[in-house]
Amino acid sequence: MKSLIVLKIGGNVIDNPPVLEAVLRDFAAWQTHKILVHGGGKIASKLMEKLGIAPKMVEGRRVTDRETLDIVTMVYGGLINKNIVAALQSHACNAIGLTGADANLIPAVKRPVKDVDYGFVGDLKPAGIAADTLANLVKAGLVPVLAPITHDGNGMLLNTNADTIASNVAIALAKAFQVQLVFCFEKKGVLRDPNDDDSVIKLLNEDLFRRYKNDGVITTGMIPKLDAAFAALRSGVSEVRISNPDGLKNGTKVINN
Amino acid sequence: MKSLIVLKIGGNVIDNPPVLEAVLRDFAAWQTHKILVHGGGKIASKLMEKLGIAPKMVEGRRVTDRETLDIVTMVYGGLINKNIVAALQSHACNAIGLTGADANLIPAVKRPVKDVDYGFVGDLKPAGIAADTLANLVKAGLVPVLAPITHDGNGMLLNTNADTIASNVAIALAKAFQVQLVFCFEKKGVLRDPNDDDSVIKLLNEDLFRRYKNDGVITTGMIPKLDAAFAALRSGVSEVRISNPDGLKNGTKVINN
Repeated sequence: MKSLIVLKIGGNVIDNPPVLEAVLRDFAAWQTHKILVHGGGKIASKLMEKLGIAPKMVEGRRVTDRETLDIVTMVYGGLINKNIVAALQSHACNAIGLTGADANLIPAVKRPVKDVDYGFVGDLKPAGIAADTLANLVKAGLVPVLAPITHDGNGMLLNTNADTIASNVAIALAKAFQVQLVFCFEKKGVLRDPNDDDSVIKLLNEDLFRRYKNDGVITTGMIPKLDAAFAALRSGVSEVRISNPDGLKNGTKVINN
Repeated sequence: MKSLIVLKIGGNVIDNPPVLEAVLRDFAAWQTHKILVHGGGKIASKLMEKLGIAPKMVEGRRVTDRETLDIVTMVYGGLINKNIVAALQSHACNAIGLTGADANLIPAVKRPVKDVDYGFVGDLKPAGIAADTLANLVKAGLVPVLAPITHDGNGMLLNTNADTIASNVAIALAKAFQVQLVFCFEKKGVLRDPNDDDSVIKLLNEDLFRRYKNDGVITTGMIPKLDAAFAALRSGVSEVRISNPDGLKNGTKVINN
């Protein structure tokens, strides 16, 4: 089976142009099938501020009203996505920028209202991911660049978590490729001591993760990413890595027990 | 040879949601290969106004400075393009929204500065259009939706005239398909009398066009569209039609002498 890397880059990379440029240059040079998934970063919030729209947050998550949906569609699906594509093209990487609405790649449902109404936020339908279409694009020599936007199939775009997109796309492609999933964020990896940037946990399995969680070593921000990592490994993804832009091949390697 | 329709919709359609919805529903139902090319409309100008950016115009053309480029990338490449894709998907049309940067579909050069510096405006390179990639997407059952943005191959996005994109894409695909090009705008067709909406010229060849131009019957706004139409016909496009949303199969039929 051919190998394929799914690289997820977060807001900290997107918000730092020289870092983003370096990551894109590295990514463009990888001689393997590959897919880039990008998050949002602060550009959307800054634009909302300029427009006098107050960002709505509940429990650290953005609540997406209609105005906010338009902003993230513009910023994630347009500005960020297309500038990444143009940069990759300049490095001879044949990028194609897409949302989950394009080619019906990632169908989703609007998150049901329970305690909180998250608005136009999409929970993706993993079984609905158009793995064949993605695989065909990749096999045709194209490099999909996925923005964190999905759709409900009824004409509504939905704001969707980029980590979730990355792990589910990795899983969906694990039938056709040997898939490596890399989360690139601001730290060198999962840290044993949040105050020591060099205390990277080199190898992390689920038992260890549970222990670190109980001991309070691994905390809030990291937990959903690692949950997604273990879910991916359980569903056929070969390897998950969590690292920073300087060490995409290093960082924390997440493995099955 | 299989047939393919390239439909160009302009700002007047995009700025009128019920009209846009009706056009997209019609387009989705066409049982043929097809490509949609959309223009911009007033959303970008409105957003600029809200942000306190004065639109820069020279001789009726938008001058694209860096700020304006970001706005059109957001609005054309993100908001408009992705909402059209989501709407088409809701009508069971497997749309895929793309700019000229994606898959290197439409390479361009920044317009050279002569009397006017148009800024980040792209003149596309007709020979560089990735006709094979477009044809493969179409043959795979996808419906490309093209935003009026191209790129220079060096990482720079460029604002590009949508009529020009539509006619050049139609020409590039004329080797692989029998191509019909339809310009959808606010009038029922090319009018003999600008004050009489029903004075549609049903059939227009180049000799007649030259005469109407000399007589002042056909004026400024219409001339670049018709120049593009005749250029397309001379380069292998089978048929060009200019019509309004209510009569996409009617309007003015432009033919070779």
